[in-house]
Amino acid sequence: MKKLINNPDNVVRESLEGMALAYPDLIKVDFDPHFIYRADAPIPGKVALVSGGGSGHEPMHSGFVGMGMLDAACPGEIFTSPTPDQMLEAIKRVNSGVGVLNIVKNYSGDVMNFEMAAELAYSEGIPVFNSLIDDDVAVKDSLYTQGRRGVGTTVLAEKICGAAAEQGYNLQQLAELCRRVNLNGRSMGMALTSCTTPAKGSPTFDLSEAEIEVGIGIHGEPGRQRMSIKSADEITEMLALSIIEDSAYQRTVREWNQQQGEWVDRELIDSPFEQGDSVLAFVNGMGGTPLSELYIVYRKLAEICEKKGLKIVRNFVGSYITSLEMQGCSITLLKMDDELIKYWDAPVKTPCWRWGI
Amino acid sequence: MKKLINNPDNVVRESLEGMALAYPDLIKVDFDPHFIYRADAPIPGKVALVSGGGSGHEPMHSGFVGMGMLDAACPGEIFTSPTPDQMLEAIKRVNSGVGVLNIVKNYSGDVMNFEMAAELAYSEGIPVFNSLIDDDVAVKDSLYTQGRRGVGTTVLAEKICGAAAEQGYNLQQLAELCRRVNLNGRSMGMALTSCTTPAKGSPTFDLSEAEIEVGIGIHGEPGRQRMSIKSADEITEMLALSIIEDSAYQRTVREWNQQQGEWVDRELIDSPFEQGDSVLAFVNGMGGTPLSELYIVYRKLAEICEKKGLKIVRNFVGSYITSLEMQGCSITLLKMDDELIKYWDAPVKTPCWRWGI
Repeated sequence: MKKLINNPDNVVRESLEGMALAYPDLIKVDFDPHFIYRADAPIPGKVALVSGGGSGHEPMHSGFVGMGMLDAACPGEIFTSPTPDQMLEAIKRVNSGVGVLNIVKNYSGDVMNFEMAAELAYSEGIPVFNSLIDDDVAVKDSLYTQGRRGVGTTVLAEKICGAAAEQGYNLQQLAELCRRVNLNGRSMGMALTSCTTPAKGSPTFDLSEAEIEVGIGIHGEPGRQRMSIKSADEITEMLALSIIEDSAYQRTVREWNQQQGEWVDRELIDSPFEQGDSVLAFVNGMGGTPLSELYIVYRKLAEICEKKGLKIVRNFVGSYITSLEMQGCSITLLKMDDELIKYWDAPVKTPCWRWGI
Repeated sequence: MKKLINNPDNVVRESLEGMALAYPDLIKVDFDPHFIYRADAPIPGKVALVSGGGSGHEPMHSGFVGMGMLDAACPGEIFTSPTPDQMLEAIKRVNSGVGVLNIVKNYSGDVMNFEMAAELAYSEGIPVFNSLIDDDVAVKDSLYTQGRRGVGTTVLAEKICGAAAEQGYNLQQLAELCRRVNLNGRSMGMALTSCTTPAKGSPTFDLSEAEIEVGIGIHGEPGRQRMSIKSADEITEMLALSIIEDSAYQRTVREWNQQQGEWVDRELIDSPFEQGDSVLAFVNGMGGTPLSELYIVYRKLAEICEKKGLKIVRNFVGSYITSLEMQGCSITLLKMDDELIKYWDAPVKTPCWRWGI
């Protein structure tokens, strides 16, 4: 294993220390338990947004803490869920009194721990809502998940809901907005290579020199199919068509009812893509992919969207939700409307994403 | 070789096609010869900035074309200099009549071809100045270079001079500013792994599982020393001290004299770092390096700068001048003053770097 690290046990902590040194005007970091929060939190009158998950997917989430996105992020160890106490401390630190929206990727550990944190916050009188992201069309159940995994749409939800929170949306409005982003968004990824976590020191999975894994998860979870290497155009077509043609996915989601202090089941169904839809096209690198290759993927994706009658009204190309140094990409398509476009375009100022300010 | 490409011969072209599709409001692309230019070029009354070099270092240069940075970029094939006709066509397209500043990294092919392009532009009545960047302290001569190579400072020079051009600097002022940025900036890089160009299909150089190369060039040129893997702190210290403690480098640079239409030699000498200096600290990923590792490097770099009495007044952490999927990093320190800070902070709107707008 060759990495720019010191002790494998200290990777997350030292990386956070580096961030704290690099962005003292934007963020602060608390340790034991670890969380990153806006330097100016809590923001009076604003609903706070908290997210988190295993580390190793940077810049998500820690790089997206700041004006117009998250108020706090809770990083677990590499590819490991953060703990409820991290989440609770973060929630308490950024809560201004009008509530906290937790954006939770659908991985069993993240979901369970954010549910526990929500209950603890409720017991301390903090209004909380957990919004689930489960947008990965590759697999319905997987190693770490019941139902679909949460991937690329998470980044888009953090941007859009973060901007809406700045504009004064209350907790219920944000919960509805985040739910809509999730139902409008779908993703699928693939890997050319594996990645190596510092703790394990050897590749998370094995791929031969001539193989790729299509439908991979962001922790290297098995995908839909292992196959021989294909061209960028063929890979893009597999991912894009899987996303565009997936049937409306139906699932039961547990949502927190603040009034009654209990979890209630809610039936949710995806909003499939239709000819004439406006979409945001997000081509994401897995961490070790040259940017030039992502543009080759975008080139084909634009052609496919045009053929399918989907109008790309916004796009986003880069490595934003990664798996350490894994090579590969994921595609996310998000159905857009005026409200989503307005908040997508709004200013943002975080360590790893800044525009309009 | 596993890459997200179609035909190895079409990588640069298809990547540019993808960029053209992704950013039609920001850039346009011409093919045969290839160059990227601002969609709104030429900008009346503004000196235009042109850069270029081999592809494979994205986002530099093509991702930095737009308001506040470059007016045009000329991408060669992967790790191969662009041709004089590419440069000349780009210069002609973006020239508004008040001149063009070419920012040229010190590689023999780039220098020779940009010199030829400058002469051709002069013969067509276009005032041109070629500013050389030679900031890499690792080696004085190398495989592709006479003198020091041009690396990380290039990105900073493009940002700072681009902003100054927006503010109305004339060609002479920009030439002076760019020269000062170059004399104030120093870099050094290292590689954990090699990279593979699509044309060759096998690694550019070989590094064993336990080796690193310190002082590497951005095309995988040999560095100062091959050694066994070290900790991030040790690596950061090697790079940072090499930069900070390097003696004042003296070289003869050929500069174009517009009045006389000829090249004149000019003696230039670095401005070494001294206790009390304000610096911009740039930690750059080589393309395949997880962002979290760059923050571990930044953490140590901040400590070293503090010990050495250098005050980090701005920083920049990310993969901006890359070598395809190479893992590793480079450090650039740039001595700052009020003028440089002002233009560093100014708005920029390009495909891969946007803030303030």
